[in-house]
Amino acid sequence: MKRACYPGSFDPPTYGHLDIITRASSVFDELIIAIMKNPNKRNAFTEEERVRMLQEITRDLPNVKVVVGHGLTVEFAKSIRAQVLIRGIRAVMDYEYELQQATANMFLDETIETVFFVARPRYSFLSSSVSKEIALNNGDLSKFIPEAIIEEVEEELNPLKKKNGRE
Amino acid sequence: MKRACYPGSFDPPTYGHLDIITRASSVFDELIIAIMKNPNKRNAFTEEERVRMLQEITRDLPNVKVVVGHGLTVEFAKSIRAQVLIRGIRAVMDYEYELQQATANMFLDETIETVFFVARPRYSFLSSSVSKEIALNNGDLSKFIPEAIIEEVEEELNPLKKKNGRE
Amino acid sequence: MKRACYPGSFDPPTYGHLDIITRASSVFDELIIAIMKNPNKRNAFTEEERVRMLQEITRDLPNVKVVVGHGLTVEFAKSIRAQVLIRGIRAVMDYEYELQQATANMFLDETIETVFFVARPRYSFLSSSVSKEIALNNGDLSKFIPEAIIEEVEEELNPLKKKNGRE
Amino acid sequence: MKRACYPGSFDPPTYGHLDIITRASSVFDELIIAIMKNPNKRNAFTEEERVRMLQEITRDLPNVKVVVGHGLTVEFAKSIRAQVLIRGIRAVMDYEYELQQATANMFLDETIETVFFVARPRYSFLSSSVSKEIALNNGDLSKFIPEAIIEEVEEELNPLKKKNGRE
Amino acid sequence: MKRACYPGSFDPPTYGHLDIITRASSVFDELIIAIMKNPNKRNAFTEEERVRMLQEITRDLPNVKVVVGHGLTVEFAKSIRAQVLIRGIRAVMDYEYELQQATANMFLDETIETVFFVARPRYSFLSSSVSKEIALNNGDLSKFIPEAIIEEVEEELNPLKKKNGRE
Amino acid sequence: MKRACYPGSFDPPTYGHLDIITRASSVFDELIIAIMKNPNKRNAFTEEERVRMLQEITRDLPNVKVVVGHGLTVEFAKSIRAQVLIRGIRAVMDYEYELQQATANMFLDETIETVFFVARPRYSFLSSSVSKEIALNNGDLSKFIPEAIIEEVEEELNPLKKKNGRE
Repeated sequence: MKRACYPGSFDPPTYGHLDIITRASSVFDELIIAIMKNPNKRNAFTEEERVRMLQEITRDLPNVKVVVGHGLTVEFAKSIRAQVLIRGIRAVMDYEYELQQATANMFLDETIETVFFVARPRYSFLSSSVSKEIALNNGDLSKFIPEAIIEEVEEELNPLKKKNGRE
Repeated sequence: MKRACYPGSFDPPTYGHLDIITRASSVFDELIIAIMKNPNKRNAFTEEERVRMLQEITRDLPNVKVVVGHGLTVEFAKSIRAQVLIRGIRAVMDYEYELQQATANMFLDETIETVFFVARPRYSFLSSSVSKEIALNNGDLSKFIPEAIIEEVEEELNPLKKKNGRE
Repeated sequence: MKRACYPGSFDPPTYGHLDIITRASSVFDELIIAIMKNPNKRNAFTEEERVRMLQEITRDLPNVKVVVGHGLTVEFAKSIRAQVLIRGIRAVMDYEYELQQATANMFLDETIETVFFVARPRYSFLSSSVSKEIALNNGDLSKFIPEAIIEEVEEELNPLKKKNGRE
Repeated sequence: MKRACYPGSFDPPTYGHLDIITRASSVFDELIIAIMKNPNKRNAFTEEERVRMLQEITRDLPNVKVVVGHGLTVEFAKSIRAQVLIRGIRAVMDYEYELQQATANMFLDETIETVFFVARPRYSFLSSSVSKEIALNNGDLSKFIPEAIIEEVEEELNPLKKKNGRE
Repeated sequence: MKRACYPGSFDPPTYGHLDIITRASSVFDELIIAIMKNPNKRNAFTEEERVRMLQEITRDLPNVKVVVGHGLTVEFAKSIRAQVLIRGIRAVMDYEYELQQATANMFLDETIETVFFVARPRYSFLSSSVSKEIALNNGDLSKFIPEAIIEEVEEELNPLKKKNGRE
Repeated sequence: MKRACYPGSFDPPTYGHLDIITRASSVFDELIIAIMKNPNKRNAFTEEERVRMLQEITRDLPNVKVVVGHGLTVEFAKSIRAQVLIRGIRAVMDYEYELQQATANMFLDETIETVFFVARPRYSFLSSSVSKEIALNNGDLSKFIPEAIIEEVEEELNPLKKKNGRE
């Protein structure tokens, strides 16, 4: 049985993430999505919100689980007995960064392999930060954020749709 | 059970190929190495020689098999009931080409996924063509070509070591 | 009135070319598609075939014309009184090559500007050479080649669909 | 009549910007330079200062206007009835970012086209941030910043040339 | 006599830096390592700590000296009568940034040449920031940081190994 | 004394080559330009013509010599007692290829270092092959080929200026 771990910040999850999740879950027996804590990064959504959103968009994928991770990615993957790390790549800039991480991980632990999925062309421009910028400017998120969570994302980020009681 | 297919020309196989083979065979249940016929490419080694060399260097990997393939890679992978295509990437130029192939393959058949392994740093400069150039100039191949097949490669390519009775 | 020239080999034209043509013809008053003769390149289709195919797929674009060009692109563009050269880019490898051509053209003639359109994501993997490879292997071209000319392309390239009386 | 919009922060404008402005204003009937407000970016110059500097360096280009924009670039361009967005690119890192923005913009509004101009080689190393770093260290800006505004830029940034009464 | 200057922040020095230092010191008669002050960057180690660590790891290289520099790199190099700037490059992202710096430097002073050394493959994934991230997460630094200074780096960064009396 | 070797095909030499030669000859005590024989490449100029052209354009650089080399570059450099290989880089595609060569060379011989010079921006688009294409089409070579040899290059390549009695 092969268990794979897909680490990231998912702040918020996009159609691009969902595409990688769907495809990786068809290639491996079990897929653990790990929302990695990063004390140096300010996120728009709390860990709980991101867990809930990822669970919402993966509810039809029975072999996918969502957890919160911490520490070095490769150590965390090992602690949950994953043999494989999943990364999605879209562009050359991504690729360089991902290559640097993957080779650093090889040096830290040779028993965990990183495998890459290339984003489908229609998602190759998508990122959480582009999505946030569009939401902040009251733009249309429907091609960026999965339908099941788009309302929650807009209530958090779009200044014209903010939920009462949130600041 | 997940069967993966690693297509290529392997003319000749290098330590870089062997690294990808070893790692992919640990991630998937079965790995089929497919020497793809390409009528537009002149190869230094015959298909039979390449099959034999790949079998030689993978003899300790029980879940690896070597075959000769033909036609579109994605169609061939399907014909042998592989669910996954394996590609190794080393550099940005590789990456662009591989991305183009992978996305073309997605359009041809959505049921076969391409996953990428990044070359280990110590193999990131390796290629069959660099190896051939070194052999042609009587250079030292020991860091490029697996020990089990280095003699065969040199007897074919190194003008000072050519086997009697060839050509 | 701004006249733009879109040079290339279009061997054969793809949906990617058609996308650039459609968008450039909406930005400029007149668009001349120039099939540039290149004595060093073996093409699959004759110039006459490529003119006819481009005319076929652009018949609804009244401000588009197709011609055959020769010599240095920038000189040819000038000879047909175009002020702008159009190029489509898909990837980093394209971009580097295109940048080199565009800067060489600036040195040859400062009065002609090169402007670039980025391929839509869904066409970013498309190229004439990938299309030819698929046709040669009897693959499905329907996502690559415009419907109006797909039969002609297949009759030329697909070994199982070759027209009687050809070759 | 084709109206183009060239968005950016221009903090401060460089010879690289001026080159793109000059060339784009020769290709399109009207060019609107839009200084986009970005609440997340700390600028060295106020919007008023940047408007004045851009007007100063474009005073010989009658079809160029300078405005301050806000919100999503593509929405702003539409609000001023521009059909085309202009972007200058210098390098691969630029290109990837620009490609991501351009494809996001295609998804937000298909009626506005982004076209790219490649920086002339002699300006390909230029950026506002390199210019600011040089000014902060009392370096020579004469190859970076247009002559008409160099004094204003130095009075703002160069610690040895700061104007009396500014802090 | 050729004196070369290798500028950087070295926060902390890695095996990658040491590799470039060793190789550059064999190519040039004298090599000055310049820790450049950068008021905009928060460093983990003080200048004094970085001087001491660089002296420690280069004590067997008699033609290497360590200094603290300030202002524009090219001006500082000139002030210490270096004719050459040394830079190490690992990846395409590095390369673009380095190319931009090198060409800006050419414009500021044509008498100082920048020459590049490519990182050895086994160090191509190494960076100060990856090293800091690993230390912060109590990971194994032995393949990243030279042995002579690894204890000092861990006492500063690894939360489980912090020296008494430091906070 | 540091002797450097600048290998290449120089078919023909361009202003870009001359720029690297001039700068490398100011950094190293002696510079040997090595026209490397490559049996797989068809050149437009004979080795003798290329030697003569390189001598012509470097006649004011007393520490530069021109030779014809053969075999593996790194072996040839060693045979002429050079400690350093010089390479010029212009673009990302160059850089990847050069990086692969440089790392292969490290594996073949650790005693020879490769150092890179970045092309000046005004030469960054220049290449022998672009120059040949322009000459073949009777274009203006004056910004591409050094004045001292431009007549010889045109007499060889430009179909309208071919010397009587050739071919």
